[in-house]
Amino acid sequence: MRIDVLTLFPEMFPNVLGTSILERARERKAVEYHLVNFREYSDDKHRTVDDYPYGGGAGMVLKPQPIYDAVADITNKVAAERRRVILLCPQGEPYTQKKAEELAKEEHLILICGHYEGFDERIRHLATDEISIGDYVLTGGELAAMVIIDSVVRLLPGVLGNEASHVEESFSTGLLEHPHYTRPADFRGMKVPEVLLSGNHKKIEEWRKKEALKRTFLRRPDLLKDYPLTDEEKKWIGEWEKEGKT
Amino acid sequence: MRIDVLTLFPEMFPNVLGTSILERARERKAVEYHLVNFREYSDDKHRTVDDYPYGGGAGMVLKPQPIYDAVADITNKVAAERRRVILLCPQGEPYTQKKAEELAKEEHLILICGHYEGFDERIRHLATDEISIGDYVLTGGELAAMVIIDSVVRLLPGVLGNEASHVEESFSTGLLEHPHYTRPADFRGMKVPEVLLSGNHKKIEEWRKKEALKRTFLRRPDLLKDYPLTDEEKKWIGEWEKEGKT
Repeated sequence: MRIDVLTLFPEMFPNVLGTSILERARERKAVEYHLVNFREYSDDKHRTVDDYPYGGGAGMVLKPQPIYDAVADITNKVAAERRRVILLCPQGEPYTQKKAEELAKEEHLILICGHYEGFDERIRHLATDEISIGDYVLTGGELAAMVIIDSVVRLLPGVLGNEASHVEESFSTGLLEHPHYTRPADFRGMKVPEVLLSGNHKKIEEWRKKEALKRTFLRRPDLLKDYPLTDEEKKWIGEWEKEGKT
Repeated sequence: MRIDVLTLFPEMFPNVLGTSILERARERKAVEYHLVNFREYSDDKHRTVDDYPYGGGAGMVLKPQPIYDAVADITNKVAAERRRVILLCPQGEPYTQKKAEELAKEEHLILICGHYEGFDERIRHLATDEISIGDYVLTGGELAAMVIIDSVVRLLPGVLGNEASHVEESFSTGLLEHPHYTRPADFRGMKVPEVLLSGNHKKIEEWRKKEALKRTFLRRPDLLKDYPLTDEEKKWIGEWEKEGKT
């Protein structure tokens, strides 16, 4: 996969892309990162990228020209059959693990980071996707781009050491993950549940499934809307509902 | 505000915290950032921070001891009346702009970043808050911590140049933001809406309000659930619903 990030602040990226899994993915040639400062594409002599908003109001608005020309230059240079041009913005589609899995199948991602006040509406026409990483306001699209990159790159084949290790995670299964414990068995009076010390793998497996469901039921019941419950799971939920009422 | 970040990868942060608004906030003494590698608090001679999970399974689990001791050391050193200890994790409360506004009123935030596979359940007892920035899986809590920092610090008094400029943003009003346009009025055949060129400020204001509502209705109708609609706004929505059906 090739990833191009269009940003006015390319210096924010190297230490994030150069650490841990994102660096390992690059070393294994699963991904190539390219940082593009679209200020370099501005066609006026002061290299301006923004201008006052039509109709008045606070703040500056990113002009269409530099971003259009940067995207055109990249798509002319880079041949790719499966490409997405993604605009990071609060008005975009809410990002989910399912979307990360979908993007992980592409050949080429171009991520466009706005900054400060907003961007000219016509920039949206460039995008195949508009994505919001959550219902909060950030200074710019840069952190959102990093979140997309991290969540997608770790899904690329050969990037995580253990191929199985992202199958059990929160959201991948449709549920929040079960609790984890490591040594010591008694940490300052807080004990590890007996079952995990039992060596009984069938019981441990059952406990984990039940705890994952219980945690999801208690913290994020909205996630259960699309989750296919077995009869046993429905019975457990009935019990937890009763407990909650007493 | 003082922010302490507990992480195994402190090198990911300086270029993000040193750019744009986050750097300006530090220069204006609105915030102080402290990066703490909790590996330094590990009490064994190899400075290990993780161990095998009880009950078996893929991946390593962060041990409680280094994180407990790092938090204790910070809270002993730093006096603060209003402090939060925030664990970044997929099982946390979904992060929103409202939560950012709440955190912006605190004196001291301690952000704990897990990494890789997970952390010992007992670490949750340290936290006043568990936060998830969205329903997707990241390599670690570092990017989530940066998202919290960015969204909170820009709300601190004196940080944004124009105090008014975050009042109109997406989510702050309860709606997605209206479209923005800047010069040229005709960009490669795409034109700016007439009303914005009219100079009629009352009409411009009305157009913006209507477009913000329309965008929210079309893209994120879930946000309208808690939004108090006027009679006129209800009428508009009725019209858009009719248009949608034809």
